[in-house]
Amino acid sequence: MEKETVRIENFSDAVFAIAITLLVLDLHAPETSTIKNGTELLSFLKGEWTSYLAFTLSFFSIFIMWVNHHKIFKQIYSRNTAIMFANGLILFLVTAVSYPTALLARFFEGEASNIAVAIYTGIFVLINLSYNLLWYTASSNKKLLRPEITNSAIKKIRNNYLYGLPTYLIAFGISFQYPTAALVISMALLIFWAVSSGKIKMIQE
Amino acid sequence: MEKETVRIENFSDAVFAIAITLLVLDLHAPETSTIKNGTELLSFLKGEWTSYLAFTLSFFSIFIMWVNHHKIFKQIYSRNTAIMFANGLILFLVTAVSYPTALLARFFEGEASNIAVAIYTGIFVLINLSYNLLWYTASSNKKLLRPEITNSAIKKIRNNYLYGLPTYLIAFGISFQYPTAALVISMALLIFWAVSSGKIKMIQE
Amino acid sequence: MEKETVRIENFSDAVFAIAITLLVLDLHAPETSTIKNGTELLSFLKGEWTSYLAFTLSFFSIFIMWVNHHKIFKQIYSRNTAIMFANGLILFLVTAVSYPTALLARFFEGEASNIAVAIYTGIFVLINLSYNLLWYTASSNKKLLRPEITNSAIKKIRNNYLYGLPTYLIAFGISFQYPTAALVISMALLIFWAVSSGKIKMIQE
Amino acid sequence: MEKETVRIENFSDAVFAIAITLLVLDLHAPETSTIKNGTELLSFLKGEWTSYLAFTLSFFSIFIMWVNHHKIFKQIYSRNTAIMFANGLILFLVTAVSYPTALLARFFEGEASNIAVAIYTGIFVLINLSYNLLWYTASSNKKLLRPEITNSAIKKIRNNYLYGLPTYLIAFGISFQYPTAALVISMALLIFWAVSSGKIKMIQE
Repeated sequence: MEKETVRIENFSDAVFAIAITLLVLDLHAPETSTIKNGTELLSFLKGEWTSYLAFTLSFFSIFIMWVNHHKIFKQIYSRNTAIMFANGLILFLVTAVSYPTALLARFFEGEASNIAVAIYTGIFVLINLSYNLLWYTASSNKKLLRPEITNSAIKKIRNNYLYGLPTYLIAFGISFQYPTAALVISMALLIFWAVSSGKIKMIQE
Repeated sequence: MEKETVRIENFSDAVFAIAITLLVLDLHAPETSTIKNGTELLSFLKGEWTSYLAFTLSFFSIFIMWVNHHKIFKQIYSRNTAIMFANGLILFLVTAVSYPTALLARFFEGEASNIAVAIYTGIFVLINLSYNLLWYTASSNKKLLRPEITNSAIKKIRNNYLYGLPTYLIAFGISFQYPTAALVISMALLIFWAVSSGKIKMIQE
Repeated sequence: MEKETVRIENFSDAVFAIAITLLVLDLHAPETSTIKNGTELLSFLKGEWTSYLAFTLSFFSIFIMWVNHHKIFKQIYSRNTAIMFANGLILFLVTAVSYPTALLARFFEGEASNIAVAIYTGIFVLINLSYNLLWYTASSNKKLLRPEITNSAIKKIRNNYLYGLPTYLIAFGISFQYPTAALVISMALLIFWAVSSGKIKMIQE
Repeated sequence: MEKETVRIENFSDAVFAIAITLLVLDLHAPETSTIKNGTELLSFLKGEWTSYLAFTLSFFSIFIMWVNHHKIFKQIYSRNTAIMFANGLILFLVTAVSYPTALLARFFEGEASNIAVAIYTGIFVLINLSYNLLWYTASSNKKLLRPEITNSAIKKIRNNYLYGLPTYLIAFGISFQYPTAALVISMALLIFWAVSSGKIKMIQE
């Protein structure tokens, strides 16, 4: 059985690659006229730490999403309209990540911190939902999947994304009161996904 | 018969992927100094709804154009100069979409709404025409097409793009008087293309 | 004999695709506050015609360069350091095209027109030279080329790029006195390349 | 043994291609209102020489990094989580290069020159370390590598990256006192890598 999804995967990879690289456009160099010497440049750059944090966090979040996207599509062999649009929704949200990233970079310090973090964690809730939707759509018809895939593997992938949801929701929920804690949870989730992505691989193959 | 169009398709896919991802650059985060707290940030973001609308509409429009581009090129096996430049015209217009999108985002509210919407719907008229041109160019010489393709399939693809034209023209025509209605028609067309793209697939294969 | 240049071609294609798509970022939408109604928006957009001209000219110039790049690499089977860096030089210049494009867009009207056009036509002189360098580098050792290629085909490709040079130089030379004429020559060259690219194909294959 | 790393390489290539092309966005055309005639435009452009220097240096640095990335991955046949994230780190740093490039462009002239150059040379120290990490990770388990690779080739690649480190560190160290000299060393390293990349090829294959 031939894999029909190659061009979708290539297109998706390109969108992930562009979205991850465009993040750097939100690191702003100061205007020449505002900086007199090296000390002032260093102190400007130190003041930009929220930009670096947001850039780093979003870069590795999109990177891990790409790894996971890759893993899901290794199991999908045929496409239909529902898969096309569930995937389109993922790409839409991944592309949009740079906007909450810019908000986080600018407002993590200061009074608007809770709203900025809530929007930032909120988009990851939506992305998690869209991954769940993609796998639900694909696995609802086993004919669309890799012929050798076992029911247990299908379930394990489903649970992998389903179990992420409550944690993302918790991070989102507490952003309004404890934005820093919410961001720490997001980072912890990132590390968890990075480490667990190795294990999932073994399960699937 | 070997398919000669692989590198054209890859190049086109890359242009579609970049054009769709660059749209996000027109979502602007507010300056730090203008926002005092979370309430002000939320109210700023609410005021940006036309940007989100324009971003979403253009993202899925380009996404569906890509799906259609993919479908047309599945039927084209050889290339000639005319196909190269009909395709170049499509890529030119797809790349340009971000400009009318920015105009729509900024001027959908307010007095200039009709002109902004007319330009926005206008570019989709041009894109529809360029798709018609591509298929006309390719199908005018059956030797350029997939050997197994039937005359009925060729005609169905042609009609598919031809029938879109009057609707795009209507949306364009009424923009000057009823910009909101014109945009609603554009959205309805989007949903129609998304749904019908599943059916066309069955016809072609 | 296996073609070794696939990854170079893919990388080059990606750079061409990104460079061609980034051009649109120099089409600027007006600030909301400066436009009161549709008439003002239209009159602003009319005033931007040099931007559209520069965008269109550069888009199709890069597109034709990509077509030509594609054709040259169809004949190159092996790579060496010299080819890598001749190609790197082409990519460098293609990437840079957006800068003279922005200058042309902003200064084609007005007193600085001659300098803006001279820089714009100047970069195409450099690009032509880099294509000549690439083909010179590749064809200086016939072992690097497609095994079936004839000496006459090698010579025809060489002449194709060599004969472009004087025309580009003329366009560059007269820019200082007659910027509009220089730009018209550039456009004529563009159309010539587009049309002749069909003929070259037949020669090569 | 099938090569498992194709999609990682394609994704990495795309990130390299985008990062290298986005550099041009930091070449700024002057505002129309600030330039009265061709002489003023030329004098503005001459004043921008640090931007052109930074753009050129970073373009060819990323280009050579891409060539090296290509060479390393030709030897890697299997992937594991460690390789994925060592590669992710490289992509993160390559993406980030445009930020120190912008700082260099703006501050190489003037009092903040030493800090700007230190940050610029500093990121290349980090990139060198991440390449060392990638090769260390991949070569620590010979099963991950191309089956035919010899121990001597593994060692040669390792040394190639290891020997670069002290030079990058020297460039970084002297930036604080002699920023111009540090930049000259960086350029010399660039030329060394370009030339040596030809030799490494012969060793490996």
